[in-house]
Amino acid sequence: MPIVPIEIDAGLIARLLEEMSQHGSDGGTGVSRVAYSPEWSDAISTYRGWCETAGLESRLDAAGNVWARLEGTRTGPCVVTGSHTDTQVPGGRYDGTLGWLAGFVAVAALKEQFGAPIRSIEVVGFCEEEGSRFPGNFWGSRAITGAIRAGEADRIVGWDGMTVAQAMRHVDLDPSLLPSAERSDIDRFVELHIEQGPVLESEGLAIGIVDVITGMRHYLVTLQGTANHAGAFPMDLRRDPVVAMADVVQQLTTHVESLGRPAVTTIGRIEVTPNGGAIVADRVEFVIDVRHPEPSVFEGLCANVEETVQRCAGTRGLEYEWSVIADHEPTPSDPGMVADLLETMEQLGLPPRVMHSGAGHDAMQMAQRSNMAMIFVRSKDGRSHTPVEFSNTEDIVRGIEVLAQYLYRVCYD
Amino acid sequence: MPIVPIEIDAGLIARLLEEMSQHGSDGGTGVSRVAYSPEWSDAISTYRGWCETAGLESRLDAAGNVWARLEGTRTGPCVVTGSHTDTQVPGGRYDGTLGWLAGFVAVAALKEQFGAPIRSIEVVGFCEEEGSRFPGNFWGSRAITGAIRAGEADRIVGWDGMTVAQAMRHVDLDPSLLPSAERSDIDRFVELHIEQGPVLESEGLAIGIVDVITGMRHYLVTLQGTANHAGAFPMDLRRDPVVAMADVVQQLTTHVESLGRPAVTTIGRIEVTPNGGAIVADRVEFVIDVRHPEPSVFEGLCANVEETVQRCAGTRGLEYEWSVIADHEPTPSDPGMVADLLETMEQLGLPPRVMHSGAGHDAMQMAQRSNMAMIFVRSKDGRSHTPVEFSNTEDIVRGIEVLAQYLYRVCYD
Repeated sequence: MPIVPIEIDAGLIARLLEEMSQHGSDGGTGVSRVAYSPEWSDAISTYRGWCETAGLESRLDAAGNVWARLEGTRTGPCVVTGSHTDTQVPGGRYDGTLGWLAGFVAVAALKEQFGAPIRSIEVVGFCEEEGSRFPGNFWGSRAITGAIRAGEADRIVGWDGMTVAQAMRHVDLDPSLLPSAERSDIDRFVELHIEQGPVLESEGLAIGIVDVITGMRHYLVTLQGTANHAGAFPMDLRRDPVVAMADVVQQLTTHVESLGRPAVTTIGRIEVTPNGGAIVADRVEFVIDVRHPEPSVFEGLCANVEETVQRCAGTRGLEYEWSVIADHEPTPSDPGMVADLLETMEQLGLPPRVMHSGAGHDAMQMAQRSNMAMIFVRSKDGRSHTPVEFSNTEDIVRGIEVLAQYLYRVCYD
Repeated sequence: MPIVPIEIDAGLIARLLEEMSQHGSDGGTGVSRVAYSPEWSDAISTYRGWCETAGLESRLDAAGNVWARLEGTRTGPCVVTGSHTDTQVPGGRYDGTLGWLAGFVAVAALKEQFGAPIRSIEVVGFCEEEGSRFPGNFWGSRAITGAIRAGEADRIVGWDGMTVAQAMRHVDLDPSLLPSAERSDIDRFVELHIEQGPVLESEGLAIGIVDVITGMRHYLVTLQGTANHAGAFPMDLRRDPVVAMADVVQQLTTHVESLGRPAVTTIGRIEVTPNGGAIVADRVEFVIDVRHPEPSVFEGLCANVEETVQRCAGTRGLEYEWSVIADHEPTPSDPGMVADLLETMEQLGLPPRVMHSGAGHDAMQMAQRSNMAMIFVRSKDGRSHTPVEFSNTEDIVRGIEVLAQYLYRVCYD
């Protein structure tokens, strides 16, 4: 179908991003706004004020997800867009926040320019995605898909020592009402998000459409050796877990580099005990992050991780154990939605780039119940989870145009 | 010269070690007794009580080293034995404490059995060796050799935030008097110490004589890369300092293992920033501990460390820097003292084993002013700097016999 002209106000989205960044402002362009914090509550209030001004009905669900609804003329399932309201500590102004506010700007523009749609549209701001206050993440989207287990709010303890339930009560949310946040009337979910990687930039492209969210597994590995004096204990008698950890990092990196893109394996967290400069370590704990968008390659990478840990520990005579602390199979987008989004891009004169998402997103969770796709906006230098993350307004407007056109296509016709 | 029978009371040394371990007792066999702490003061008082009972004159010098003196009939330089009074946190009952109390038992036995020597003998308990309260170490022995620089007591801040000067005043020591602790009348220093390694045990030997204390250098290395998203950032564009650190560990370990004993290189301390499981690290700081007793091999090992860091950082496109935070050249024992000690061992029916010390000791500092040698006592499983460190009483008595015979040889004849 042909496209209609939809005006997206560049000044508006720039101003909203700027104003929202003040809620949790953390030096320069940094933002620290964790779920259920005072800054977070203020952000939600500010946003609901904008909804009211735009004539969009808003509400907070029992989990703390904020919804703005543009009622359709026909009853039935609705189409949802949005992203998360929380940030890393410190994060930047765009991760999550951009998709949330982009959804608002797109829907406000549609309402102003075309009035009520046929199918209802909602914009969601997920309350918690980053895991920056509580271990694990996707708390908000899991509430919507009914994936939160009974008692979980009391069991999950945040980095500040407070449970999710306690933190919720601090912002007047009642954890016992969590089941009421579940939705079964969402037909399609489309999330706009910054890429958080360098692929679009390296190809000179502003926008990409995600056809699959990578599979991701986190192994927490413990290698147990024997602490000894760094001077008095000969190399040949040592059981040094730091050396075995280095072997693991080296072998996994060599293997994944030989596979080439999009395979990635990362060791970003290492804890050495007792961590003394003159002591052969007793124990090393580290996290291995494994990702690939293709299920068979992903499983192969994971199997290789397990073999490598076992082999390297064995070579050094160490005890070892691992546990899987996060595990997400690759999540494909809905092919029909991807095709529609790509056609929309072409109609807008944008090269129709398809790509995988190397990061996890609420969209992954939403895909358990709804058709899903994502729109990526170019990130400067591929940076994210840092105050320096940046996407320029021109790219952002192109992304919102794609989103607005897509919503028009599926909701107004 | 022939040896005379000298009786060493096994029950006495066992009892003194047990009683001393109560000062700073830290669960089971653990001892945490840092310099200038209340536990440390109590330990010194207890010890001085034992000296009084044994008829040995004792004093605390301006640094807090405790001295017990058995006056000789002839004036002139004296012979000193002893070790340190402080422990790791938690350490065990033997590191330092054994050499200190062994000296006391040997000298008390000599006094009781032979009366006054010709040359004066002193037993020293160094106030601080471990660096377990203040960074750096050898504070006590450096006071004795005049190696403490003006103002140092005010500049060194301990792990608890207190300066050395403040900690000294807490136990009624006046830092301005530190220079008075210097001694220039010590002709020979012999330190008995647990081996802290597995060499004697692996050879079925109780006692060894140290002919050289290893050279030791600590490099604090920083590798600076770029933090990025572990999923969204391709391997080929990363600047990951964890991978480069692993390369360094792997290459240094391979190199030093190919050299065989006594070369050792240890990475026991690693700090990753920001240390997130899903974040390519921004920076890794780690300590490389390099040791070898032969000066030319030691320098070669250090040169290889520097080249390896540079090469591995370069391969990954990282910035790097290092600083040397501890540096001790190999310290040879006095050959005449070693020969005398070995002859004494043979006369006592002990295999005359010569070995290097892989650990640093106060003896290293004392060697700047005096002839020096060390007597090592077998360590169970080579363990030290842990509550499980252990040496059996039979071995300990053999070590004290060697020490007492040596002191008799040089002071009574």
